[in-house]
Amino acid sequence: MRVAGLISGTSVDGIDVAVVDIGEGLHVVATSTVPYPPEVRDAILSVSNAATHTATIARLNFLLGELFAEALRETGVPLETIELIGSHGQTIFHEGEPVEFCGRRIASTMQIGEAAVIAEHTGIETISDFRPSDMAAGGKGAPLVPFLDYQLFRHPELARIALNIGGIANITVIPAHAKPDDVVAFDTGPGNMVMDAVAPPFDRDGERARAGRVDAMLLERLLADPYYRREPPKSCGREQYGAEFVRQTGIDIATATDLTARTIALAVGRYPATREVIVSGGGAHNRYLMERLATLLEARVCTSADFGIGVDSKEAILFALLAYQTCHGRPGNLPSATGARHPAILGKLSSGTKRKMGA
Amino acid sequence: MRVAGLISGTSVDGIDVAVVDIGEGLHVVATSTVPYPPEVRDAILSVSNAATHTATIARLNFLLGELFAEALRETGVPLETIELIGSHGQTIFHEGEPVEFCGRRIASTMQIGEAAVIAEHTGIETISDFRPSDMAAGGKGAPLVPFLDYQLFRHPELARIALNIGGIANITVIPAHAKPDDVVAFDTGPGNMVMDAVAPPFDRDGERARAGRVDAMLLERLLADPYYRREPPKSCGREQYGAEFVRQTGIDIATATDLTARTIALAVGRYPATREVIVSGGGAHNRYLMERLATLLEARVCTSADFGIGVDSKEAILFALLAYQTCHGRPGNLPSATGARHPAILGKLSSGTKRKMGA
Repeated sequence: MRVAGLISGTSVDGIDVAVVDIGEGLHVVATSTVPYPPEVRDAILSVSNAATHTATIARLNFLLGELFAEALRETGVPLETIELIGSHGQTIFHEGEPVEFCGRRIASTMQIGEAAVIAEHTGIETISDFRPSDMAAGGKGAPLVPFLDYQLFRHPELARIALNIGGIANITVIPAHAKPDDVVAFDTGPGNMVMDAVAPPFDRDGERARAGRVDAMLLERLLADPYYRREPPKSCGREQYGAEFVRQTGIDIATATDLTARTIALAVGRYPATREVIVSGGGAHNRYLMERLATLLEARVCTSADFGIGVDSKEAILFALLAYQTCHGRPGNLPSATGARHPAILGKLSSGTKRKMGA
Repeated sequence: MRVAGLISGTSVDGIDVAVVDIGEGLHVVATSTVPYPPEVRDAILSVSNAATHTATIARLNFLLGELFAEALRETGVPLETIELIGSHGQTIFHEGEPVEFCGRRIASTMQIGEAAVIAEHTGIETISDFRPSDMAAGGKGAPLVPFLDYQLFRHPELARIALNIGGIANITVIPAHAKPDDVVAFDTGPGNMVMDAVAPPFDRDGERARAGRVDAMLLERLLADPYYRREPPKSCGREQYGAEFVRQTGIDIATATDLTARTIALAVGRYPATREVIVSGGGAHNRYLMERLATLLEARVCTSADFGIGVDSKEAILFALLAYQTCHGRPGNLPSATGARHPAILGKLSSGTKRKMGA
């Protein structure tokens, strides 16, 4: 077997390469060293060892591995019945669009929650780091949830839309009898983010919005944002609807709730063949918002719970499914949703040593 | 197949868990959410998205993936002949001993150089992140090189020591007819680090040291450091022999070279049965240092090049071998060297999608 080994040492000089034939013995085919460009070396040194920020990330990575393993244990499902874990981890950075960096165009993402720790503490093979493989293939690393939506909700005759109302709201459009490439997914605009900022921690059942009055002038002005009429694919920055947005617009809870409902309706309205809109995410708990959606949308409005998928657990289910795909050597991204050049087998596999070693 | 999915969302509330049976359909067995302890949430938010330091790490991770793939390509070995890559990446943090962190004892390490990018750019399955699996099993994540030393240099009748002279010098002690558990490995003290600081960038062939005069009083004082007589396992901090050491001691190049040679001799002297000392690392190029070692050591002094292993490429070869082990489901750490509770299958496997997808 011909195997390549790559390392850059702690002296941060450059990349050492060895190509080795391994079988009965070990035969070195080629070796070389490629120095780092000076600006890359400087960037590495600027984030290396002594930097406390890097220490926090490294320690958090291992700590979250423990917490994730413990969270699984707390479900009470016997670990020995579980064959595989898909762990998304905690995103601490995501930049789906390339930026200029050390003379190149680089898109990047970073999730922490060390999978080797999860595998060790549970004895179960663990797949992690799902987004980088899509980005390596030119995708934005998001959204990944359309893959689950497509598996769960595609229908030979009904055109459906899966709507997730998290901080940002997004939809997965699944035409009747859709092939993977027919699926479209994009952010519709604010989800709970503006509502939560105006009525913290959140407007239970939407009662405050129901009792309030929509500022029609403000709403009209906000809906004029060209984003809502732009062709997909498109995505919102989370910063767009943060505290600054609330301060600048002086928006109230009734208007914020209607902004979410109306921007969703604008997006869904692009697909008049849609017969069902299947809602998940925290917004599905907001009774008033759900009523507004039922009024504004032509299609039937229901929740993912009607399909056996709790509205709060769709993403965790997604990473179980993506791990299953990877473990079977099958891709897990939808290029039509992420913009990747091709389907990709997502994630990295950490072996659960303990069980394998019989310990 | 029963699969667990784990995620913490961008709202950083806590860990969502789903256990799902996947086969013909998808049946949800259990779901739950475990909130983060407040201090963990605060720590995550402190390193999240907006932080420029995190951005630098995330972007470097993807950039180094590209540079590592290009470094392999530059060897000229046809990529289609290579079946597997083992990439150590670039260490930016390593803390083998646990420290107090958010109320737990956490040891951690962090290597960057995104394996998904390497796999995508080469079309070759890539194994990365070798150290965390050993640390998850209670080891220090280092040294890993004794595994290669053991494979290469064990001998039915000859006791051997593999000596690597990098910034720090370390030895792997391999008794005659050794079993894996018989192997001992530890840092002997300074390698090239003090020499390089005194005679930057380095003392070619040791000519300046040869021409100089050893400060016997200073040397004696330095050799009195109890570290050199302490029982292994033990390891040096790199900071220990940095600029501050040079400033405080006022050491010259001749004395620095002798300090390295004498501390190596002290360590090797613990194993009087040793017949051969096999040197690798940058220090093997220092002719004067090699002569000093030949004088000071009872055993025959040779280099890894005598065994077909270039003195500068041992680590790259190591990660090819460790990838080979992992790919065959075999452990790659030596618990007697790292302190791990058990042998561990090291690393994480990223699939090379392109080749698999036939693109």
